[in-house]
Amino acid sequence: MDGYTEYLLFAAARAELCRTVVKPLLETGCTVLLDRFGDSSTAYQGYGHGVDLDFILRTNEIATGGIKPDLTILFDIDPETALTRPGSFDDRIEKRGLDFFRRVRDGFLTLAGKDPERFRIVDASQDIESVTREVVRYIDELLC
Amino acid sequence: MDGYTEYLLFAAARAELCRTVVKPLLETGCTVLLDRFGDSSTAYQGYGHGVDLDFILRTNEIATGGIKPDLTILFDIDPETALTRPGSFDDRIEKRGLDFFRRVRDGFLTLAGKDPERFRIVDASQDIESVTREVVRYIDELLC
Repeated sequence: MDGYTEYLLFAAARAELCRTVVKPLLETGCTVLLDRFGDSSTAYQGYGHGVDLDFILRTNEIATGGIKPDLTILFDIDPETALTRPGSFDDRIEKRGLDFFRRVRDGFLTLAGKDPERFRIVDASQDIESVTREVVRYIDELLC
Repeated sequence: MDGYTEYLLFAAARAELCRTVVKPLLETGCTVLLDRFGDSSTAYQGYGHGVDLDFILRTNEIATGGIKPDLTILFDIDPETALTRPGSFDDRIEKRGLDFFRRVRDGFLTLAGKDPERFRIVDASQDIESVTREVVRYIDELLC
């Protein structure tokens, strides 16, 4: 599938989610936790797959209706190490190989470097208990 | 479905079609005839459904990879008359009612008015033989 097609499908899914689920919840005062948001498109389809970055950033802004995360937790791991984890690289996108994942990782780290107020980077090569503790701490810092 | 979601799904379909089918054919010198293109999104999701027009125009440009039709034939008919035709207003979009179709029609006519070099408007309330003759004439004028 062409990178632009893939990006626009994710943007469509995100537009529907934001307008029908996330925005109504935020308006009632809820805290919303998502496993991925616009940054994933920028990293995967932009940095990884070569879709124009300005196009993605502008389209994300409209697709999400301007909703921006207060906190983004980036689980960072070297792709070689990730490959040793069970269930890695099983799906269509994950089959793209190490070079693709190196570009995606660099993309995420670039995004985090540009917006350090919003991003917290967790070293995901740690054991699951340490990763969990860090995540809980960052969420506590935001909410408490 | 939200108008932005609907627009982005059409944009994804058009991105895939343009990059995998239309562009390769144009590059071999073929003439490509499509039943709908970016103007339909501008008219239906933009004028009809309220999606931001500038967003659609900018996104269409990128989604199509800059491909622009040499000729666009607009089959124009009053929505009340269209309603009397067999098979009209049967699908999800067509169930939106007359007000929606009046906005879509006004949108198409506005687009045609802004780009008279590219558009030819056919009076689709005529019988099928007359409509066909006009279409063939416009295509002949372009190709011959």
